[in-house]
Amino acid sequence: MTIPNTMKAVHLHDYTEGFEHLTVEEVPVPQPGPGEVLVKMAASPINPSDLMLISGIYGFRKDLPAVPGFEGSGTVVAKGPGLLPHLRVGSRVTVGSQRDEDGTWAQYTVAKGMMTLPFNKSLGFEQAAALVVNPLTAYAMVDDVKRSGARAFMQTAAAGTLGGMLWRVGKASGLKVINIVRRAEQVADLRAEGRAYVLNSSEDDFDDRLAALAKELQATIALDAVAGEMVGRLVAALPRGGRVVVYGNLSGANVSAAPGQFIFRDKRVEGFWLSQWINDISLVRLLSVWRKVQGDASFRTPVRARYALDDINEALRTYSEQMSGGKVMLRPDGELSG
Amino acid sequence: MTIPNTMKAVHLHDYTEGFEHLTVEEVPVPQPGPGEVLVKMAASPINPSDLMLISGIYGFRKDLPAVPGFEGSGTVVAKGPGLLPHLRVGSRVTVGSQRDEDGTWAQYTVAKGMMTLPFNKSLGFEQAAALVVNPLTAYAMVDDVKRSGARAFMQTAAAGTLGGMLWRVGKASGLKVINIVRRAEQVADLRAEGRAYVLNSSEDDFDDRLAALAKELQATIALDAVAGEMVGRLVAALPRGGRVVVYGNLSGANVSAAPGQFIFRDKRVEGFWLSQWINDISLVRLLSVWRKVQGDASFRTPVRARYALDDINEALRTYSEQMSGGKVMLRPDGELSG
Repeated sequence: MTIPNTMKAVHLHDYTEGFEHLTVEEVPVPQPGPGEVLVKMAASPINPSDLMLISGIYGFRKDLPAVPGFEGSGTVVAKGPGLLPHLRVGSRVTVGSQRDEDGTWAQYTVAKGMMTLPFNKSLGFEQAAALVVNPLTAYAMVDDVKRSGARAFMQTAAAGTLGGMLWRVGKASGLKVINIVRRAEQVADLRAEGRAYVLNSSEDDFDDRLAALAKELQATIALDAVAGEMVGRLVAALPRGGRVVVYGNLSGANVSAAPGQFIFRDKRVEGFWLSQWINDISLVRLLSVWRKVQGDASFRTPVRARYALDDINEALRTYSEQMSGGKVMLRPDGELSG
Repeated sequence: MTIPNTMKAVHLHDYTEGFEHLTVEEVPVPQPGPGEVLVKMAASPINPSDLMLISGIYGFRKDLPAVPGFEGSGTVVAKGPGLLPHLRVGSRVTVGSQRDEDGTWAQYTVAKGMMTLPFNKSLGFEQAAALVVNPLTAYAMVDDVKRSGARAFMQTAAAGTLGGMLWRVGKASGLKVINIVRRAEQVADLRAEGRAYVLNSSEDDFDDRLAALAKELQATIALDAVAGEMVGRLVAALPRGGRVVVYGNLSGANVSAAPGQFIFRDKRVEGFWLSQWINDISLVRLLSVWRKVQGDASFRTPVRARYALDDINEALRTYSEQMSGGKVMLRPDGELSG
């Protein structure tokens, strides 16, 4: 396999508002260092966490200019010095990008550490590209719900890709799931999928219905991607002792909740961050979870649109305007037919 | 001891805003039922929780009209049927008022259950009257800080009565305490008391200084009486993994905090309610703590003003206008000289 000298890569130059100020640059193909591999990228999805990074509100900022993209799939085309026995030239791998390195929105990326994971070829590049951020988050959060002894949970942004995964994984674990969406069409769509409990937060009686359903199903945990005032509504609807786990910030607004819910009703608000979860678990457990998410159809990602790297800003606009109904996938390899 | 047929009692008639709409009524002296005692009240403090009850934002509402007052001291003057071996007529007792009964702002109150506790006569009625709400809260919250393994905590409303107790109890437990106040005079007052770490939240560099001090002292817990935006400032200043325990609502505003602090920095917000803590512990442990708070000077309450029951609205105004610098004490026995 011939490796060219230069490649196309998406570049972020500043952390201002909006998602449409990225450029595509022709830059040298990076060299893998000790313990690193060079991966020729095939596919990489756009996730809410990418939008947060681009807006400067993610958990860290990269030094600029930087290549965004937290996950993707491709083929190992070169190895640096050092033993990486499970990674051979020609291996198809999923790459999870780390804090201090350029990301996956490029034709080539240098990957290292434990987040370069070979995948079963039957998956295909697109499913493998989206096998870190959402699947591991869904796995970890449902695992937390199960460990807490809860019988049910509620979730916001239920019509999104992660919302679908959380429902499937929760249901497969014997948990009841209360799905919260914002529009009537989404209620119909999710009911048609077979979801039993779907509530529309735009309806007048939403808060009362959510509280009644939470009580009936004993839903003591809320998984929230919205933040802002929605957290206060979830907190209020939970039974005594309940907790909200905030993992996203789609509203862009501060978490807001009535103090009496904390003081008198023993509720709490906490957070979830996949990077922290990965850092906290052992490699053995990570590889076990990796096998699980590859083999379980609950973790599959619907794809609704594909873009070449050159069209990054159009891809971001398409995604940010509608974050439900399937992923927007970047294809650095130019395969736009799926 | 002759028990009259009627008595004066403060009455709350509605849960509207403000604290100055209470009346003093001449009503029949209540009769103790099985397992209950009748207590002739001597002293009863005004606490922030009383203001919350009167405003309708406490953890429960009493059926109206109701007698407020969560704690007080007096003398057992009659017993109902049933064995209460530790309570004799003539016993001096502290009364902690329960949810479903009239409170302590009256000349007589019927008290029952485990919250009628004889006290050491050397304390005097006023100190004994204030030995439940603040001392048990201070004990319980510092105990929680110690059990968490923290080396230090921060606290808001540090110039208040409970703030003083929390500092003394924390210090006696080997913990460093960061005291947060709102005015420059309070900084001077608290420094003069010997408090080493005092910050003024009205100063421009407060947030930076608080974060730096929290890091230096490893203060991983914040005890908060204010709620509102202060919670967001505390959350932001805490090191990774820190938590805010909200136990009061002096601002009257919703808890507000940046979602990234929960998601990326593993912070959380929870609450503390003394009623819940008392319900959750054993009677044996409660009596052990009761001995401790009677015998430890850290739990003493400064008193700055005394009022007869008839002057309840003036007492509430005095207290609500300045909640630091010592307690406002109601004296149903008319002893206004302390």
